[in-house]
Amino acid sequence: MNGLPRFMEVLGLTVERADAEETRVRMDVPDALMSPFGAVHGGFVAALLDTSFGVALHRRLEPADRIATHSLNVTYVAFSREQLLFCDARVLSLRKAVATVEGEVTTGDGTLVAKALGTFGVRRA
Amino acid sequence: MNGLPRFMEVLGLTVERADAEETRVRMDVPDALMSPFGAVHGGFVAALLDTSFGVALHRRLEPADRIATHSLNVTYVAFSREQLLFCDARVLSLRKAVATVEGEVTTGDGTLVAKALGTFGVRRA
Amino acid sequence: MNGLPRFMEVLGLTVERADAEETRVRMDVPDALMSPFGAVHGGFVAALLDTSFGVALHRRLEPADRIATHSLNVTYVAFSREQLLFCDARVLSLRKAVATVEGEVTTGDGTLVAKALGTFGVRRA
Amino acid sequence: MNGLPRFMEVLGLTVERADAEETRVRMDVPDALMSPFGAVHGGFVAALLDTSFGVALHRRLEPADRIATHSLNVTYVAFSREQLLFCDARVLSLRKAVATVEGEVTTGDGTLVAKALGTFGVRRA
Repeated sequence: MNGLPRFMEVLGLTVERADAEETRVRMDVPDALMSPFGAVHGGFVAALLDTSFGVALHRRLEPADRIATHSLNVTYVAFSREQLLFCDARVLSLRKAVATVEGEVTTGDGTLVAKALGTFGVRRA
Repeated sequence: MNGLPRFMEVLGLTVERADAEETRVRMDVPDALMSPFGAVHGGFVAALLDTSFGVALHRRLEPADRIATHSLNVTYVAFSREQLLFCDARVLSLRKAVATVEGEVTTGDGTLVAKALGTFGVRRA
Repeated sequence: MNGLPRFMEVLGLTVERADAEETRVRMDVPDALMSPFGAVHGGFVAALLDTSFGVALHRRLEPADRIATHSLNVTYVAFSREQLLFCDARVLSLRKAVATVEGEVTTGDGTLVAKALGTFGVRRA
Repeated sequence: MNGLPRFMEVLGLTVERADAEETRVRMDVPDALMSPFGAVHGGFVAALLDTSFGVALHRRLEPADRIATHSLNVTYVAFSREQLLFCDARVLSLRKAVATVEGEVTTGDGTLVAKALGTFGVRRA
């Protein structure tokens, strides 16, 4: 494919760093993703986490390997009125057919917004 | 506010039904929310669930009451290549300051895509 | 092995029903599993759910197949001061290497105590 | 009450450390809590996590304050055949009526067994 998937643009995402140890995804939250009460909609925080977990996993797989989210568990710690968020994700375990990932979302000044755990199925090419 | 929140439009959401017993939200998944592999991106399935849970809860609260998602746990059962999804949500418990909600996402033909449980904080006006 | 696993006895569990559609496990909560405040300790409610999910899955597998819990997500709805609990579990999906299960815990009079979703790895013999 | 709650004994638990920053609970897993296949039963890993989260929270509350687990999400990373486990728990946020906690279970040699996130209701005395 040419360029980034379109959902990255919808969410305002940029991959800032993705190496073997940690992945950092930046989210410049578009106005349309704010709730009527001035906070980032929690559903898009979940989408940020799921996307970042996928980026972190793909970094450890071959290009043709495929993943599927099996469970995504998000614990919300605080609302964010700021529209600049970062998600840091780390692969906890990676086996032949299953992987686990964790990560957290923070605002630009480091305030914790949410933490999450995910399990993924892996289909090796 | 005038009309629906803008994130409803981003996600392609319409509230089909919201009464005391159950809420049904329809999602006409925009092309931009599909993954590069032709399935609805799991992060937006989570956003559909979080939004539907909120709609179900607000139906049982006063207009000025506010809610905050505390935890959202999504278990994914199948990919959906179909771009028409429905989310059915039910309030399990509603107390003074906390509520629990469950729901599932299905395709137009009834195939189960995901199930979820959520806990919410409630701030009464 | 002869007889039930010993952890069934520690938890006070009996399998009341386990067929293709649904599994029901009964828990006669031993006094030692009550919290100092007179409610069933939430950790043992989780153990009841995990055990029941395993029973439900094994009912659909061959005797030599093995399962592993990948994620267990419990949402607690109410304390139970009653020491008679039931857990009803249903397999949502069962594929070659992964399965999803849901279930709920109720008291003898039908009061909802907790709901849960689980994902499991399956290793076919 | 005199001495430890009895469920601590059932689970083989000892609080090794509980200060403002982190709580460490040791579990000498009784034989009865092992699965028929020689691993620690995952339900008791969940009970270890729930208990440790409660200890960590109580450390930050007044003695008469009460807590209730609202959600417990456990992601299992590996089986443990070892019967010596440790759970480290940290309070992520503590507000007037709600708190979030995270933690992980490791074996004596540091192998990761499970990670978890919990949300709790707090009732101040």
